[in-house]
Amino acid sequence: MKTASNRSKAIRMQSSKERVPANSATFLQVAESLAEIGRGFYARGWVLGTSGNFSAVISQEPLRLAITSTGLDKGALTPGQFLEIDEAANVMRGDGRPSAEAVLHLAIVRGVSAGAVLHTHSVSSTVLSGMHARHSGIALEGYEMLKGLTGVATHKHREWLPILENSQDMVELADRVSSRLEQTPGVHGFLLQEHGLYTWGESLADAKRHVEILEFLMEVLVRSGAIQNA
Amino acid sequence: MKTASNRSKAIRMQSSKERVPANSATFLQVAESLAEIGRGFYARGWVLGTSGNFSAVISQEPLRLAITSTGLDKGALTPGQFLEIDEAANVMRGDGRPSAEAVLHLAIVRGVSAGAVLHTHSVSSTVLSGMHARHSGIALEGYEMLKGLTGVATHKHREWLPILENSQDMVELADRVSSRLEQTPGVHGFLLQEHGLYTWGESLADAKRHVEILEFLMEVLVRSGAIQNA
Amino acid sequence: MKTASNRSKAIRMQSSKERVPANSATFLQVAESLAEIGRGFYARGWVLGTSGNFSAVISQEPLRLAITSTGLDKGALTPGQFLEIDEAANVMRGDGRPSAEAVLHLAIVRGVSAGAVLHTHSVSSTVLSGMHARHSGIALEGYEMLKGLTGVATHKHREWLPILENSQDMVELADRVSSRLEQTPGVHGFLLQEHGLYTWGESLADAKRHVEILEFLMEVLVRSGAIQNA
Amino acid sequence: MKTASNRSKAIRMQSSKERVPANSATFLQVAESLAEIGRGFYARGWVLGTSGNFSAVISQEPLRLAITSTGLDKGALTPGQFLEIDEAANVMRGDGRPSAEAVLHLAIVRGVSAGAVLHTHSVSSTVLSGMHARHSGIALEGYEMLKGLTGVATHKHREWLPILENSQDMVELADRVSSRLEQTPGVHGFLLQEHGLYTWGESLADAKRHVEILEFLMEVLVRSGAIQNA
Repeated sequence: MKTASNRSKAIRMQSSKERVPANSATFLQVAESLAEIGRGFYARGWVLGTSGNFSAVISQEPLRLAITSTGLDKGALTPGQFLEIDEAANVMRGDGRPSAEAVLHLAIVRGVSAGAVLHTHSVSSTVLSGMHARHSGIALEGYEMLKGLTGVATHKHREWLPILENSQDMVELADRVSSRLEQTPGVHGFLLQEHGLYTWGESLADAKRHVEILEFLMEVLVRSGAIQNA
Repeated sequence: MKTASNRSKAIRMQSSKERVPANSATFLQVAESLAEIGRGFYARGWVLGTSGNFSAVISQEPLRLAITSTGLDKGALTPGQFLEIDEAANVMRGDGRPSAEAVLHLAIVRGVSAGAVLHTHSVSSTVLSGMHARHSGIALEGYEMLKGLTGVATHKHREWLPILENSQDMVELADRVSSRLEQTPGVHGFLLQEHGLYTWGESLADAKRHVEILEFLMEVLVRSGAIQNA
Repeated sequence: MKTASNRSKAIRMQSSKERVPANSATFLQVAESLAEIGRGFYARGWVLGTSGNFSAVISQEPLRLAITSTGLDKGALTPGQFLEIDEAANVMRGDGRPSAEAVLHLAIVRGVSAGAVLHTHSVSSTVLSGMHARHSGIALEGYEMLKGLTGVATHKHREWLPILENSQDMVELADRVSSRLEQTPGVHGFLLQEHGLYTWGESLADAKRHVEILEFLMEVLVRSGAIQNA
Repeated sequence: MKTASNRSKAIRMQSSKERVPANSATFLQVAESLAEIGRGFYARGWVLGTSGNFSAVISQEPLRLAITSTGLDKGALTPGQFLEIDEAANVMRGDGRPSAEAVLHLAIVRGVSAGAVLHTHSVSSTVLSGMHARHSGIALEGYEMLKGLTGVATHKHREWLPILENSQDMVELADRVSSRLEQTPGVHGFLLQEHGLYTWGESLADAKRHVEILEFLMEVLVRSGAIQNA
């Protein structure tokens, strides 16, 4: 079994053999979809102030992601602002630097075989992840909305949304993300404390749906008084 | 008198004699209106994560409904994503499966002679229906907004919004819905616990207005402290 | 001095001598502006479910108002849905019935020489007017936003927002509105209990600004805990 | 060292030597960007009722700002509604009066060498600045969103958001703003009590990002119960 530490070493080691960008049409199409989703999240106030980042796998062998470059105003997001990165976060196409959080996207893609990874930064997730940090996570149970999560068939499902301590050391954080994904198989997302939500899906549509569902349920918790009872 | 159980047996029994889709122009016009309403509800956050479903009667004899197919992103809803179903939820036109909740739409159309049925899934309805579940319903009284409900002439009206336990067995749930509609004549909608609102109207415009009114009043209750006093 | 009672008798007595509609270009231009404002308020959730109504004076001698006809979806408001009414609420132009609340608009136009009257029906105003009804009003003081009210020069201004008991007898209510406007000169609006806000201005732009300011301040009060302290 | 008092005297003294407007293309481009940003803030409810004002430096030598004229509906803001003012708030281009708060913009531009200054007036900032006024400011700490502030590299940063008493004497207030900016170097914005937020940036994009970040964090504080604990 690959340990989390080994895995992130693999991320840090650059594979120099593959240096060809993925299919251009695919890249542009995916970038267009990601940009549209990003502008929608901005309208809802989920990625203000250049927060948030979005990626989707455009090739598996070799691994290639379309991903937002760093520091963008998500309200004016265009396909031209996306980068193509390889499995070590090297830029294969596009101008600009990838976000430091690109290694988290890669850790998630590897850890749960995601086809797309979306990171939002809403008021609800910031409030909840701060208040509930000492419980290391939040339980979501009994809500019909849970059925929209891939593989969930009933509202009686109990979804655990882990909360990880925030960090600026992205390699260390990627390691912790990988470990947590191994320890809690079947989760659909996690929170970084006072930072926001990471979720994913087999397809980009799945990942977008997961964002909406988890943001909705966090808003439900906040308005149900989850803060007072934290 | 037909019992609830008999009625839902009738739904399960397919009437094979009528297999002709309704008028195409009517279907498309209704699907267009439903799609526009759905996109508007999505913008307000009332049908996130593929939640919600919408239908309207396009023919009475034989009974035909235009209804959303299952699993759609309501923010990008198009007329082409609607199905025509018959009185037993068989698809007469269109691609895709109807939502499992189609039998609820049919139960409502039969139970209250509705011309349109709209199901939303808002934060307010999720919060309220959870907190007030043990009262089996919520009373709405004294609000001018109540006058927008069909047949209500004064703000002094007391509207009872029943709360039904949620279920994944749609035939069983349809039976309960039918019974509840018989027991509480005159209601304009009901809540499924931690799931959302079903409302209806003689016309689609009536049903849309009822969604807005009931969502508004639930938001008023939440912000008036109805949770603390549940 | 005309008493409130005399004044509303004057409203009820039809002046038959003037039966000519006002200038068409003016009417259409005003109806266009009112429709645009109404659609904007709908987007903010201030006139859901066909609630709200809007008017502007298009002629002083004889008195003519452009006003929404009753029962309209404000999200799809068009200039063609406006009526021209005279000083007794008779329809001089357009199809449809005026809202029963047209007599309130007329009472306000006469009482404070308003050029435009706007009625919204927001969550905040419904919540606040219910909770604070026994105080007969709400005080707004210390807010910079108050300076946007016509004639107010400092945030130290104390604005009194009267709350009137709601009624379905519009003639009786119009009388009470007229009396209250006489008793509390200088107010910029009032609330009907669990119903909503009426405000006005010399121009339509003034009235729109007053809606935004008073809705903003009511939202501030609700979020500052005004409910708990009511 | 120039004292705050000297500095504001400099503002009041008109420099008559420079009377040429800045480059027209620059002015129009900047006004276009400011107008677009303003309409976006209006949509979020941050500049209702003609509140808020926006400026950007279009020339350093001589100092020239593009700035909103007073009393505008920010939802319909156009480039033609901007003025060019000099270092003493004299209008060099455009119709209309500058806002009385233009001297605050000038004080900020001088005090922190800002390239753009944006003033919003949200519900959150009004609520928070009222409740926390006696602490003379609000601390923001531990939030990932802080990293979007220019020069901040970690969520562990502690941002102090000063609260100044509101005033209608803009010259006096500009003096206090200048003093406060000297006393608390490194702040990214400040609140006027029950009035709103002033923030700035080297570029207009920086200032817009700072508005979004600080508005977001104030909303987080309000929803985290900062009012109850004030």
